[in-house]
Amino acid sequence: MTERVFNFSPGPATLPLPVLQEVQQNLLALPGVGASILEISHRSKTFEQIIAQAEENIRRLLNLPEEYHVLFLQGGASLQFSQVPMSFLRGSGRSADYIVTGSWAKRALAEAQREGDVRVVWDGKGDNYSRVPQPGEVQIDPRAVYVHFTSNETIQGIQFATGPETGDVPLVCDASSDFLSRPIDVKRYGLIYAGAQKNVGPAGVTIVIIRQDLLEQVPDNLPTMLNYRVHAEHRSLYNTPPVFAVYIVMLVTRWLLENIGGLEQMHAINRQKAQMLYDAIDRSEGFYRGHAQADSRSLMNVTWRLPSEELEAEFVKQAKEAGLHELKGHRSVGGIRASIYNAMPIEGVRTLVEFMEHFRQKHA
Amino acid sequence: MTERVFNFSPGPATLPLPVLQEVQQNLLALPGVGASILEISHRSKTFEQIIAQAEENIRRLLNLPEEYHVLFLQGGASLQFSQVPMSFLRGSGRSADYIVTGSWAKRALAEAQREGDVRVVWDGKGDNYSRVPQPGEVQIDPRAVYVHFTSNETIQGIQFATGPETGDVPLVCDASSDFLSRPIDVKRYGLIYAGAQKNVGPAGVTIVIIRQDLLEQVPDNLPTMLNYRVHAEHRSLYNTPPVFAVYIVMLVTRWLLENIGGLEQMHAINRQKAQMLYDAIDRSEGFYRGHAQADSRSLMNVTWRLPSEELEAEFVKQAKEAGLHELKGHRSVGGIRASIYNAMPIEGVRTLVEFMEHFRQKHA
Repeated sequence: MTERVFNFSPGPATLPLPVLQEVQQNLLALPGVGASILEISHRSKTFEQIIAQAEENIRRLLNLPEEYHVLFLQGGASLQFSQVPMSFLRGSGRSADYIVTGSWAKRALAEAQREGDVRVVWDGKGDNYSRVPQPGEVQIDPRAVYVHFTSNETIQGIQFATGPETGDVPLVCDASSDFLSRPIDVKRYGLIYAGAQKNVGPAGVTIVIIRQDLLEQVPDNLPTMLNYRVHAEHRSLYNTPPVFAVYIVMLVTRWLLENIGGLEQMHAINRQKAQMLYDAIDRSEGFYRGHAQADSRSLMNVTWRLPSEELEAEFVKQAKEAGLHELKGHRSVGGIRASIYNAMPIEGVRTLVEFMEHFRQKHA
Repeated sequence: MTERVFNFSPGPATLPLPVLQEVQQNLLALPGVGASILEISHRSKTFEQIIAQAEENIRRLLNLPEEYHVLFLQGGASLQFSQVPMSFLRGSGRSADYIVTGSWAKRALAEAQREGDVRVVWDGKGDNYSRVPQPGEVQIDPRAVYVHFTSNETIQGIQFATGPETGDVPLVCDASSDFLSRPIDVKRYGLIYAGAQKNVGPAGVTIVIIRQDLLEQVPDNLPTMLNYRVHAEHRSLYNTPPVFAVYIVMLVTRWLLENIGGLEQMHAINRQKAQMLYDAIDRSEGFYRGHAQADSRSLMNVTWRLPSEELEAEFVKQAKEAGLHELKGHRSVGGIRASIYNAMPIEGVRTLVEFMEHFRQKHA
């Protein structure tokens, strides 16, 4: 019997146990195939069914209209930071609007600035990136080629309730850390990209959802591997895709559909888990101090400080001894961060809340 | 007990059974970690040791001098087709020399032509891509920014015995399908790239070996994710790498060192396997006709035709029934292709040779 801890890593992150068990069971040979998922051709019928099923699961979970394509790419969100402006901004003679809410939005901005003119239409620096803009607070340029935002900032632990209103300007979203964690109104988006390693799979595959009209704008002169249209035309099989990572995405999205029941149910569970932690912070009489402002609290990454850095180090150390791993906050924010993506069970959060109460009683 | 077939897929391809067994055993939780390799942070000590070990294994296998960097990237060889000319050709005011030996060299050439001036210094089209150039046959431009060649063409089944002589001009090699299959004189190369999914791992990680002087030439204005220098400075941890694929590369290279004994031994085994198949072709009295000319025969992909397409289809069908899978040749060459990378056991080749003899006796 292998002992598993509660893993609060911000990503790569914990995966659903039934998924891991199925992967393990079939690791030497897929049933009826005689070879491991790690060994089969991406041109085989077996894999064509797997990637088609992964796409179909995502379509069902998001109620995706026909005019949206689902791509399975490589390079992480970090490559998308460049691929988006290379596709739509470079050479357009116009500018793109960026909403800067934290560490990841800043990285996206920096890559866009290499490719063309960019306007920062909101920056949370004055509030130490503790909140997202509220509706009406952001003035979009109606001539912008697109508006880019980061739906959840993993490092700061802040999250948009819904994305900004952009009218006819295409909305582009880095959804790496809250993709498929709740329903979204897809029709408001032109392009959504997400590294899989938080909510939907292991590191190594990036999911891009792109609307047909944007696909048609992609210039022909890009490197072939950076051309969304090529990947759409080849259904992500222009070259060898990350077969194993796509397989896990298929299993995780199936788990979302069959074990959880869809994104409404997943959202309810995620709200419940986050509420348990924010309640523990709020009733701690100032011992735990959340980083995020109340209206911007993330359901995925809960960040908080303790009265001293010594106590924070002690908290992380004792938590680990109690089987609660990877709770150290990012160095740029400090303190504690509990990442509670889809696959973190309620039991893990309950155990953490109990640990928080005990720790506070001992050290307050 | 899971039944495994002999899998002659050209890639993704068969992996060493002891590697798969270790992956399976630890799939739910790495010993002493309490989480799966699919779930651990790329910033964790555990993964830092894994990626450092993968690099160290490759350094030992290739006797890599200090001035070479080992990078673990994403996007496959197909992205390298662009990243190489973006890094060294674009804006150089000079041209690059390309040796065109088959399907993959043509793909590399097409991407380079998007980035700058390219000279095709040899093209095997006249011989239907059945051979590689012999020593002295290629005239390199001494002012070329680099010379690019494909050490093994998986589709045609032809392979360089050693790379072309290029003097002081940096030699760039797409070694995707024979990387770590035999010793090479690394000091002759400026840059080697290889998708892992033939000899060293699953799809999803690309290994790049780059010499320090070339690294220093990379311009600053590239997208960060396409900048070799950034990846070298961050030891492939600038962003989240494909953790699981790197883990498998570490296990496969350890298997090469410990179970096989290094690249000399691997080469001897690969020669033996290929010889068994080429002998079966040569003694078939013209029933099996090899595609590759004798001096260019690949040790990795053995390609041959039968007297008719009907017999070829029957061969593939009956072979599959005998547990010999994925033998259909690529549509552009036709016939049969047996891919016999490092992890294909001699027993698999022996079984195939016996099948070939029986099939010939029945149908000749």
